[in-house]
Amino acid sequence: MIQKPRLFTPGPTPLHPAVQEAMARPIPHHRTDEFRKVFAESITGLKAFLKTTDDVVILAGSGTGGMEAALVNVLSPGDTMLALVAGAFGERWSALGRAYGMNVKELRAKWGEAVAPEEVGRALDADPAIRAVFVQLSESSTGAAHDVQALARLTRERKDTLLVVDAISGAGALPLETEAWGVDVAVVGSQKALALPPGLAFVSVSARAWTRIESARAARFYFDLRRERKAQAGGESAFTPAISNVVALRAGLAAVEAMGGVDALVHNAETLAAATRKAAAALGLPLVAPRDHGDALTALYPPPGIESGAIVKGLKSEFGSTVAGGQGELKGKILRIAHLGYYDATDILGLIATLEIVLRRVGHRFEIGRGVAAAEEEYLRRVKR
Amino acid sequence: MIQKPRLFTPGPTPLHPAVQEAMARPIPHHRTDEFRKVFAESITGLKAFLKTTDDVVILAGSGTGGMEAALVNVLSPGDTMLALVAGAFGERWSALGRAYGMNVKELRAKWGEAVAPEEVGRALDADPAIRAVFVQLSESSTGAAHDVQALARLTRERKDTLLVVDAISGAGALPLETEAWGVDVAVVGSQKALALPPGLAFVSVSARAWTRIESARAARFYFDLRRERKAQAGGESAFTPAISNVVALRAGLAAVEAMGGVDALVHNAETLAAATRKAAAALGLPLVAPRDHGDALTALYPPPGIESGAIVKGLKSEFGSTVAGGQGELKGKILRIAHLGYYDATDILGLIATLEIVLRRVGHRFEIGRGVAAAEEEYLRRVKR
Repeated sequence: MIQKPRLFTPGPTPLHPAVQEAMARPIPHHRTDEFRKVFAESITGLKAFLKTTDDVVILAGSGTGGMEAALVNVLSPGDTMLALVAGAFGERWSALGRAYGMNVKELRAKWGEAVAPEEVGRALDADPAIRAVFVQLSESSTGAAHDVQALARLTRERKDTLLVVDAISGAGALPLETEAWGVDVAVVGSQKALALPPGLAFVSVSARAWTRIESARAARFYFDLRRERKAQAGGESAFTPAISNVVALRAGLAAVEAMGGVDALVHNAETLAAATRKAAAALGLPLVAPRDHGDALTALYPPPGIESGAIVKGLKSEFGSTVAGGQGELKGKILRIAHLGYYDATDILGLIATLEIVLRRVGHRFEIGRGVAAAEEEYLRRVKR
Repeated sequence: MIQKPRLFTPGPTPLHPAVQEAMARPIPHHRTDEFRKVFAESITGLKAFLKTTDDVVILAGSGTGGMEAALVNVLSPGDTMLALVAGAFGERWSALGRAYGMNVKELRAKWGEAVAPEEVGRALDADPAIRAVFVQLSESSTGAAHDVQALARLTRERKDTLLVVDAISGAGALPLETEAWGVDVAVVGSQKALALPPGLAFVSVSARAWTRIESARAARFYFDLRRERKAQAGGESAFTPAISNVVALRAGLAAVEAMGGVDALVHNAETLAAATRKAAAALGLPLVAPRDHGDALTALYPPPGIESGAIVKGLKSEFGSTVAGGQGELKGKILRIAHLGYYDATDILGLIATLEIVLRRVGHRFEIGRGVAAAEEEYLRRVKR
């Protein structure tokens, strides 16, 4: 049987056709007016995507590069930082902090849950030396989401405490009002809701974050946001940009705009995620984050007695569809299905149908078709015509 | 909601990614060794695709161009021809014959049915002047298939009667043993099972058809197969070829080869068609060709009291999926879903799920999920792992 390769992973996600076309074009030189226009328009589009008038800087690098840029620009060695750790990507904030000699404090949540803002408030009250809070909007290893709006309320009122948000897989899938909420630094990756290939990271920086950045002393060169701010104001990056990726970025942002902007993209993910959760319930696959889930992805435990790896492998080997397995302490224990980015109802309904076939193959007992039926019902309930 | 444009029409069909990539390449000049190699390898691949060692000629034109080439090369004005008319494409054989001054006899089947070989045998016995029988392998307007193997048994034993098969939408979706069965001329279009864009037609010609062609006197210039045979033996077409399409043809043929050859492609269509028919039965959508259906497409009547146009429009406007409506006397009365070419199980299961949503929207009463469930069951019954 034919198998079309399909990515249902929470990054990389399927490329938008407009992005594919842009990636295939011959490239302009980057020190030209032609490219400066592309670069500047991309920054304008990113500001709309993040709902901010703050500066947004484009970096050639992966999401982790963006996280590193965020951290090394706002802290100095020995600074106290608070990492909210709810999964594998929360761990990364801690690891970055340690690598740069920070005094890393952690608030940990059980995997599948989010750290409660109240806890964070107490921690900030207990230690006024905390210079920044680091958090994931969407924790991709579990599908849990943090209440960034509530966290920003806490940090805004504290003059010397910044909020740094890894919105890599969250932006464009979950609501994010960077400026209105008061997020100081937000990090986004290209291979997520924007439907681009990996290779670019985007970092928004608030006015009070810039003040901090001027005095921060962590070692940095490539990721020095001061240098990039100056260069990018003129439509250029300090170092050679990933030219094709930036040309494709402008195309991807235009595609988001054409579909109704970032709110429409978030609504799309929300609808597909809700349908997927109903399907999972109907099929007897427990949610990893039943209470604190976001809509960027759905993480599921396999049915009792069945290996999640067998399901992941079955979808790949029989249908060409790649879903993600677990990471860190959930490695080999779950499967993760993405909703962020360029997915439509046909994609997710087709995936659920093939998931049912694979569940049958691996011996799970359920009434076939019930998952798809539950997803269709939820779609109909949410989408009125 | 995001809508990915998806073609579920029995031509054009979705492009294979290898075809898309090839179409996007810079083109070589056609009077070069580089292109002659591409052309020759394409002809070799087409012979495997059609299961023949007969000559296969590549023409720049649509499927109808290929049909015209077939007819004008084997007949002379005033010749008696027998057209088997089981739908809109059968009518085209008659129209072509009349345009070139042939004495057109017809055997007609009710739309949705095929002309029985026994009837053809009787017609040939009754009129030995019939110089050629013209038929569709798959009649795309109804989904009905003719028993070309049985028809070829009749024509092979008649020295002066050729069998000309419009296999445009049939080849690669239904079994076709061009040489072993004794098909004299088979016509194929690029925008069908080969997953190419429209623009090319392919015509296979048996030894006895070449003999006829030498003496045929219908007016022809662009479609003169004698001139093409001579040129194409050297890896060139007589006139300027559609270069990108031919480069893509080689890529498309290689993709078919990589998946296991034409038999695998036929098996794929057969499986998806069988699953679709089960879904249609579960949802209460009657088949247009319940007995004589092929597997290139499935043609369905809407449920009683519902306009087929509302279903076609709903799939397009809500999900971006294009299914075909009816043609000719079935215009506005049916919908047609393609299986030929680059489709996989996820495609068809996703389409059936969205069809269920649309059927709900237009007021059809049925238990949601039953169509997908029936399709999954049929898939599981047919595909063993």
